[in-house]
Amino acid sequence: MARSCNFDRQEKLILAMELFWRKGFAETSIADLVEHLGINRFSLYNSFGDKQSLYRECLRFYLDHFSFGTQEQLLHPQAGLVDILTYLARFVALQREQKYGCFMQNALMEKCLDDDCVQQECQRRFAQLQSTFTQVLTHSQSQGELSLSVQPEALAAFLVLQLQGIRVLGKAKEYTLLDNAFGVLSEYLKRLALTPLNPVDGE
Amino acid sequence: MARSCNFDRQEKLILAMELFWRKGFAETSIADLVEHLGINRFSLYNSFGDKQSLYRECLRFYLDHFSFGTQEQLLHPQAGLVDILTYLARFVALQREQKYGCFMQNALMEKCLDDDCVQQECQRRFAQLQSTFTQVLTHSQSQGELSLSVQPEALAAFLVLQLQGIRVLGKAKEYTLLDNAFGVLSEYLKRLALTPLNPVDGE
Repeated sequence: MARSCNFDRQEKLILAMELFWRKGFAETSIADLVEHLGINRFSLYNSFGDKQSLYRECLRFYLDHFSFGTQEQLLHPQAGLVDILTYLARFVALQREQKYGCFMQNALMEKCLDDDCVQQECQRRFAQLQSTFTQVLTHSQSQGELSLSVQPEALAAFLVLQLQGIRVLGKAKEYTLLDNAFGVLSEYLKRLALTPLNPVDGE
Repeated sequence: MARSCNFDRQEKLILAMELFWRKGFAETSIADLVEHLGINRFSLYNSFGDKQSLYRECLRFYLDHFSFGTQEQLLHPQAGLVDILTYLARFVALQREQKYGCFMQNALMEKCLDDDCVQQECQRRFAQLQSTFTQVLTHSQSQGELSLSVQPEALAAFLVLQLQGIRVLGKAKEYTLLDNAFGVLSEYLKRLALTPLNPVDGE
């Protein structure tokens, strides 16, 4: 849909995303958005619709461009178990930096009961994550790196669960607990390998 | 502090807890509380203080009486790895029933950035959970049930992380993903046992 406006729509969308991410849906007022985005109320409604529409679009944008980042880090042709370990170690480290936690989890906790769109967006992202992990694990098995006793889809589901737990402990600033838990997780994953692994950033 | 009031304070506290659990802090107004608790505004303030004080008390009550339930189910003199597996299987099953998710996670996502009390309450509960698991795992090791290569405190941290991940997938209604992930988790735990385990409700 063509719109004539004197601002960069995506730039404003990212500003809105940051505000919703930090404050949540209920605590973010239209007045907050007007001030934070630096556009007037009319332009806001004209470009993004009502608060709920904007929230949904922000969540979608976050899920596609900010969350977890698996696609870029894991989906290269030689990806294998070692890349999953490196990815997880980086993800754990990231928890110390992202103090707002995970916008997806914030949205799940606040909105999934009363907004089916939120639930569907999150389920779409969960499916993508599982699919990415499954693909990498299957490739790892085909390369003789990962034990054939492993079922890639089940282990992928287990990894998606780990990401969620890591995010919660991160938001709670439970860094020691998180590091200890990650130690167990990475030992477990290393033992599934048929040959010793040397993750780049692993612990 | 002695108070004269013609209602059961704990009964009203539980009603308030249910409302905050379902709707969150921001979306629960004083008017909602007055209506849901069936007491007037004056009695509400007189008995519980302001909305933030009431929210904190509700969270504390939830954490002590409703969340996770590990103490009762796990802290008996013969508790061991098999009880942890049974507890986890029940916890996974519970996710299909508790559609409001976990009040602790809801509170963490919504309030831990702007209310230190919320963060401290959650950290207290995380420490209790880890301590309970550590105690059971240490006992299990002393009974020759659990491999001596396991570090009880680290595995306990790992289990606390699992509970958090399970809760998030439960709230997102990702039951298939959850069941697959739990299959991997329980297989992993069973392999840490020196003798075959037969959990009561295991999967």
